[in-house]
Amino acid sequence: MTSYQRIVLAERPKGPPTLANFRIEDQPMPTIAEGEFLVRIIWLSLDPYMRGRMDDGPSYADPVKLGETMTAGAVGEIVASRHPRFSEGTIVVGAFGWCSMAVSTGEGVQKLDPTQAPLSTALGALGMPGHTAWVGLTRILQAQPGETAVISAATGAVGSVAGQLAKLRGLRAVGVAGGAEKCAYATQTLGFDACVDHRAGDAGDLRDALAAAAPDGVDCYFENVGGKTQEAVVPLLNQGGRVAVCGLIAWYSGQRLNEGPFLPALMRRVLVQRLRIQGFIIFDHADSYPEFRA
Amino acid sequence: MTSYQRIVLAERPKGPPTLANFRIEDQPMPTIAEGEFLVRIIWLSLDPYMRGRMDDGPSYADPVKLGETMTAGAVGEIVASRHPRFSEGTIVVGAFGWCSMAVSTGEGVQKLDPTQAPLSTALGALGMPGHTAWVGLTRILQAQPGETAVISAATGAVGSVAGQLAKLRGLRAVGVAGGAEKCAYATQTLGFDACVDHRAGDAGDLRDALAAAAPDGVDCYFENVGGKTQEAVVPLLNQGGRVAVCGLIAWYSGQRLNEGPFLPALMRRVLVQRLRIQGFIIFDHADSYPEFRA
Repeated sequence: MTSYQRIVLAERPKGPPTLANFRIEDQPMPTIAEGEFLVRIIWLSLDPYMRGRMDDGPSYADPVKLGETMTAGAVGEIVASRHPRFSEGTIVVGAFGWCSMAVSTGEGVQKLDPTQAPLSTALGALGMPGHTAWVGLTRILQAQPGETAVISAATGAVGSVAGQLAKLRGLRAVGVAGGAEKCAYATQTLGFDACVDHRAGDAGDLRDALAAAAPDGVDCYFENVGGKTQEAVVPLLNQGGRVAVCGLIAWYSGQRLNEGPFLPALMRRVLVQRLRIQGFIIFDHADSYPEFRA
Repeated sequence: MTSYQRIVLAERPKGPPTLANFRIEDQPMPTIAEGEFLVRIIWLSLDPYMRGRMDDGPSYADPVKLGETMTAGAVGEIVASRHPRFSEGTIVVGAFGWCSMAVSTGEGVQKLDPTQAPLSTALGALGMPGHTAWVGLTRILQAQPGETAVISAATGAVGSVAGQLAKLRGLRAVGVAGGAEKCAYATQTLGFDACVDHRAGDAGDLRDALAAAAPDGVDCYFENVGGKTQEAVVPLLNQGGRVAVCGLIAWYSGQRLNEGPFLPALMRRVLVQRLRIQGFIIFDHADSYPEFRA
């Protein structure tokens, strides 16, 4: 091999991303300096937060620059090393980006035991998305046995773990997903008590279906989506209800996110129902990773 | 005296309340049964929450019925008693309503020591509004020394105490009030570091004035108002900022409070800035009254 491939951000998407926003580039195989190692990438991640990185402007992380490799978590095998702590053959996970080979100094890189779990889980249930689900459910929502949790994007990397953790903790878990196939997966494979298809009707139908699926109301809402799902869930929140704002993918593309006015309905609800709406970013919770992992 | 006066809700206001929504009635002086006492009212309260009680429909408390005495806290002197624990001459505070005389069984009534503080403070700084300010600042906002707090309705019963408590705790206290006179009172008498007049210009002017008054951004927002003040404050909230949603008076009258859609801008802010927006109702916090009072 004398070259490797990477995917760069070619232009900033307007609305939903398209293939034209990216470019695949062949790059000459890098050499490594003292204290570096070379990783052959095995698994790449594709996560909703990446949409935010494609936009310019302030957020909780810097945007990807045009012409730069798209940011991403990845799992790979070290194929060459001049680093004292990372030897050839070691399996690692790190923020290597969308590329087939990566050079690293080891910063932010973790070694994986390939006998413990399938390698891809380091980017899923045992990785950042699973950790996100656990923090959201236990630390932010403080979900209690007997409560009802609604989880949007229920079959996604985060939602699928959040639903299973909710069941393990003794909650009623109600998912929201797009299409009958995903809903069947949520209830039959993931173990959700119910799953509502947000594509099966209009906003009123969604509201009715959710009310039927949560007959005791909603105590915890794990928000991954925003949009009409949030509109349908918020009126069902019980007193003391909690909303963990983890993602708002329905609003990531093409919305005017920084303009007023604020909608009275939401704040009225926050007041009357004593809601706590708390955003969180998983990178703030790095200290809790070992407890989650155990 | 053979009669007393009371103010009843004659019709439900549409928009801001007017005199026509109320009626003053002369009533025959009541007699008291065993276990009751008669109170001559000295001070009546007029609080923003009353606007909600004038509307029909579910909220955190039942609405006042048409033809019923308007609900209100009041201070009075017991002028006749057949109650073993409340003797004639005792000064009490309770939910006696807008009336000149009231009969009570003592439920929810507290005795006052008239030598300790002016009687009216039982409806103000040492009463429900002061307690609300204290809970909001200490329990909900968890205000920390060195932080900046913005307090809307800064010269109101709640805001005026919240601002003084914020100063006592070592915060920078920035008020928002309507008119130059109130703003001068906030800074010169109450001790706010700054006070912004929300009537002095349009929403953009308010935003600019607040940004100038809070050069390090806003950590705590004690929300009594909603409306354009909230629109101006939320973009100034620092990471980890907190909003105690205590009142939304700008939206109490004539707004369609229960309709969608939800505004992306707010939720985006909640997410990126890890905001916690938590509504609270003082009646949930009765257990903390002694600590506050001390």
